[in-house]
Amino acid sequence: MDRRGAIISLRTLMERKGISAMIIPSNDPHFGEYIPDHYKCREWLSCFTGSAGTLVVTGQSAALWTDSRYFVQADKELAGTGILLMKLKIAGTPSIPEWIKSELPEGGTVAIDEDLFTYSEYKGYLSALDPLKVEMISDPFDEIWEGRPSLEFHSVECMPESVSGESVISKRERLCAALGVGTPFAYVVTALDEIAWLCNIRGCDVEYNPLVIAYAIVTTDKITLFGCVNMFPEQVKSYLRSQNVEIVGYSSLTDALKGLGDDVVKIFSSDQATAKNYMAAGPNILPDPTTGGTLNLMKAKKNSVELDGFRRACAEDAKAWKKLLEYLRVNIVEKDPQEYILNPLTEYDIAEKLIEFRSESEDYRGESFEPIVAYAANGALPHYTATKESYSVIRQKGFLLIDSGAQYTYGTTDTTRTIPMGPLTQEEMEDYTAVLKGMTDLSMARFPQGTRGAQLDILARGPLFSRGKKYLHGTGHGIGHYLCVHEGPQSIRMEENPVHLYPGMVLSNEPAVYVEGSHGIRIENTIVVSPWKVGDDGEYYEFETITQIPISTDPVVWSRLSEEEKQWLYSHGFIDQPPM
Amino acid sequence: MDRRGAIISLRTLMERKGISAMIIPSNDPHFGEYIPDHYKCREWLSCFTGSAGTLVVTGQSAALWTDSRYFVQADKELAGTGILLMKLKIAGTPSIPEWIKSELPEGGTVAIDEDLFTYSEYKGYLSALDPLKVEMISDPFDEIWEGRPSLEFHSVECMPESVSGESVISKRERLCAALGVGTPFAYVVTALDEIAWLCNIRGCDVEYNPLVIAYAIVTTDKITLFGCVNMFPEQVKSYLRSQNVEIVGYSSLTDALKGLGDDVVKIFSSDQATAKNYMAAGPNILPDPTTGGTLNLMKAKKNSVELDGFRRACAEDAKAWKKLLEYLRVNIVEKDPQEYILNPLTEYDIAEKLIEFRSESEDYRGESFEPIVAYAANGALPHYTATKESYSVIRQKGFLLIDSGAQYTYGTTDTTRTIPMGPLTQEEMEDYTAVLKGMTDLSMARFPQGTRGAQLDILARGPLFSRGKKYLHGTGHGIGHYLCVHEGPQSIRMEENPVHLYPGMVLSNEPAVYVEGSHGIRIENTIVVSPWKVGDDGEYYEFETITQIPISTDPVVWSRLSEEEKQWLYSHGFIDQPPM
Repeated sequence: MDRRGAIISLRTLMERKGISAMIIPSNDPHFGEYIPDHYKCREWLSCFTGSAGTLVVTGQSAALWTDSRYFVQADKELAGTGILLMKLKIAGTPSIPEWIKSELPEGGTVAIDEDLFTYSEYKGYLSALDPLKVEMISDPFDEIWEGRPSLEFHSVECMPESVSGESVISKRERLCAALGVGTPFAYVVTALDEIAWLCNIRGCDVEYNPLVIAYAIVTTDKITLFGCVNMFPEQVKSYLRSQNVEIVGYSSLTDALKGLGDDVVKIFSSDQATAKNYMAAGPNILPDPTTGGTLNLMKAKKNSVELDGFRRACAEDAKAWKKLLEYLRVNIVEKDPQEYILNPLTEYDIAEKLIEFRSESEDYRGESFEPIVAYAANGALPHYTATKESYSVIRQKGFLLIDSGAQYTYGTTDTTRTIPMGPLTQEEMEDYTAVLKGMTDLSMARFPQGTRGAQLDILARGPLFSRGKKYLHGTGHGIGHYLCVHEGPQSIRMEENPVHLYPGMVLSNEPAVYVEGSHGIRIENTIVVSPWKVGDDGEYYEFETITQIPISTDPVVWSRLSEEEKQWLYSHGFIDQPPM
Repeated sequence: MDRRGAIISLRTLMERKGISAMIIPSNDPHFGEYIPDHYKCREWLSCFTGSAGTLVVTGQSAALWTDSRYFVQADKELAGTGILLMKLKIAGTPSIPEWIKSELPEGGTVAIDEDLFTYSEYKGYLSALDPLKVEMISDPFDEIWEGRPSLEFHSVECMPESVSGESVISKRERLCAALGVGTPFAYVVTALDEIAWLCNIRGCDVEYNPLVIAYAIVTTDKITLFGCVNMFPEQVKSYLRSQNVEIVGYSSLTDALKGLGDDVVKIFSSDQATAKNYMAAGPNILPDPTTGGTLNLMKAKKNSVELDGFRRACAEDAKAWKKLLEYLRVNIVEKDPQEYILNPLTEYDIAEKLIEFRSESEDYRGESFEPIVAYAANGALPHYTATKESYSVIRQKGFLLIDSGAQYTYGTTDTTRTIPMGPLTQEEMEDYTAVLKGMTDLSMARFPQGTRGAQLDILARGPLFSRGKKYLHGTGHGIGHYLCVHEGPQSIRMEENPVHLYPGMVLSNEPAVYVEGSHGIRIENTIVVSPWKVGDDGEYYEFETITQIPISTDPVVWSRLSEEEKQWLYSHGFIDQPPM
């Protein structure tokens, strides 16, 4: 069936059910970063493959809202589908409710899938779409999507306590104590990384992230894990049993929530619960008492065993990266130009090469995200990916930007290096130096307990600002422990985030600059919030940089760096000798 | 009548009116920083003279909530009054509603003054005190406070357009355009500095701040100014008439609000409207559409004439400061010790001396706040004031901290200098250098449009953090144009404030360090957000430092400053020659 056929099938179903419009988001019931194919309904309907976009289909019309990252791609992919492209944050673009109201007759009904919207999104639409009716429906796609991929569950592994550093019982007890609820309660966990961390399990149900698709309910005496029971091998079951974890069927969560009883206090570990589950749990729902989420914050503050795992993962990953850097030196940078031009390497070759070098480690469990290997102007495209079919050839000049990370059984890595392939322009060198300076300044920061990421962000951005340049993405995201390479609740970004930085939190440190049509530069290390000293007025923290991959110094304009910055780069092994 | 008598009178009145508890805040109906004596009811009842504190009186008991700045003072001043001291932000301190609920019988009535609480505070108490009743009453103190100071109005002056740089008509038109309301509306202004700025008037109804006690309602065709009509001289009336400003009685605002009609949209310029006025204006009240307030933000973005006035005020103030610095040098620092000890100078002498030097300027209109002249350990007390009765003698060692500002007819100043009176300890010198470094780093900042103060704050704090020290107050507050020395909506502080920094905003830049029992150091300049350059991706700003008062360099540990920092201090005339 072509995609017009898909929309026609949806319209037929809508008509039969008396629905005038349907909103189809890019979500699954766990609201994670990667969506299992089973839930790629928006992509199936619209042909648009970007990760962020919301489709609305009415009886006669259809429109897709996406952000500036995807304007070009969406324009291309929507061609011929009859779906209007709605550019978010561009003047004149109507909001989804505004557009629906302009399209529908009075008394129309707007349907949303009860599994793909949070309760607060649902409430938001209720109020914004008034006086139209909003109806929650359950997944209509099984009926109309021929060949829909099924939701796949895979075999579950335990993360040994020698790697996680804490038993499930201990985690549960700490969680219950932190919640501080005096009466009977049920803590409902829907985020897959929180469940994996809490239960010391890992899986491969989601691309790049070693997650197990499941829900959990935590009470003072046990954890009920809602998953695909027969994907838990006997020894995993046995460990979980010993930790008071009971495994029950994935789809029984909603009924379990309904059965909790009105006197039990329900707390959702995040506001990312589906409207269906939220409403099944009510009444007597309390908000999570901790900014950022009690369990989420516990997960983010790594213990010393987890941190040792991170350091080991960084060391293991550095072996592969060093081989890659040597490979680039020999096969591109120092290759005879006449020889190189006959058989040049491509971005895709390099991405494959890094995987090859990583695979030499026994503990490697795959990439932690889709690697970015971007040559010259491609480096300025924020979401560039070279594929087997589409890539650029690398030449013997300019920058090659490589942003890549790996999963090891004891930690997750995420590193970016921008490597000169030959001669550079003065602007490239000045930009590189400003990015390096920003990365270094943030690495050297010291700050008191209670500091938020937004307060530190300027340290990484400042040198770029002083060149009249900026990058729009965050400076640092949380990194999970053999888990998601992007995790909350901590961040270092321009936007306010009330979560404090606590010892044990692992973050990226990745200032960058993008010059359209010319070059992109990003330097990214992994940093750990660590105790520094106890002052007269409280505790102070600093960052430990755990990435061990060399940083190219050829592009550096040394006079722009302070003595302190040079000293830091030297003492952390990123440069050989501080120039005078 | 002693203060117990005051509380007894209040209780008698409460009993007569069937009130079980009354909450008495430190507010007036304009919610300004300085409260006219007429509204110092909490001070009259409790003897507590601090600027922040809320008193609750019940039939049997009374308690006063204040913050850590005032614990020592409140303890002293409340002694013998029978009023409990409730320490805010200390574990175990009940909130005001919690305490009232524990003190009152069921069905009790809590009274609040309709003129001294905002509508949102009133709603907050309604919900927090439930099931107790909350009753709004009108000022009960006229009846019981014998000798209560009357609310004093003074003669009003115009600020000529040659000083304000813009006519009232132009300000009103810009305001109405910025509000962008299509239907008939009334913009209600209750903040005194907004009214003074909008109407190009100044007065002396409030200590330190050249304000006129008034309200205003702005409509598309005129401004109605609610003030003390006979305090407006004929030529002021005539100017205001020419600017479509109609002056009516101060107390007629509430009736005017009631008379606006339900179809008129009402917008309050801040959320600081009294409960009485807010309720008189309803229904059809919309929030101010601008973050920080439309009029407040217009006032904060100074035009070039206002900025010229600020620069002139800084130059004029520098003359007085330079005389003071010379006076300190001759009469303390370089004075023969045996001679000096016989006739030492005090903090109070110095405060008076600065006023004397300032008074030599024809344009001087008084201090812009109560000056802080604090010697040695006194400098570590955040709210220290030397008075004629209570002061310290200055010795020929350690630091003297002077934080003082003045009102000139064309601008307001605010400067802090920390001046060595003789030998210093190594810790004093290192602390001084860190504060100077922070002040300099913030001064040199460059940043794109859309930056918030909280993003830049770390630049001033960072060098202190690197010593394991911190200060808890803000780094920068807005400064008015011959107006309040503290103005909004902009700020540079740790706490999130969503207001962006715009060109023309004037702020303080005042990092500090306080070592209890030893010394306090603060260095404060006035800075202006200024356009720097237009980059490929938007506008970038920088700060212009307009303070021209020398900074002592004797305490500087030069090796801690970067070349860039030294160069900045040299090029801005704060140091004579950059040391190698």
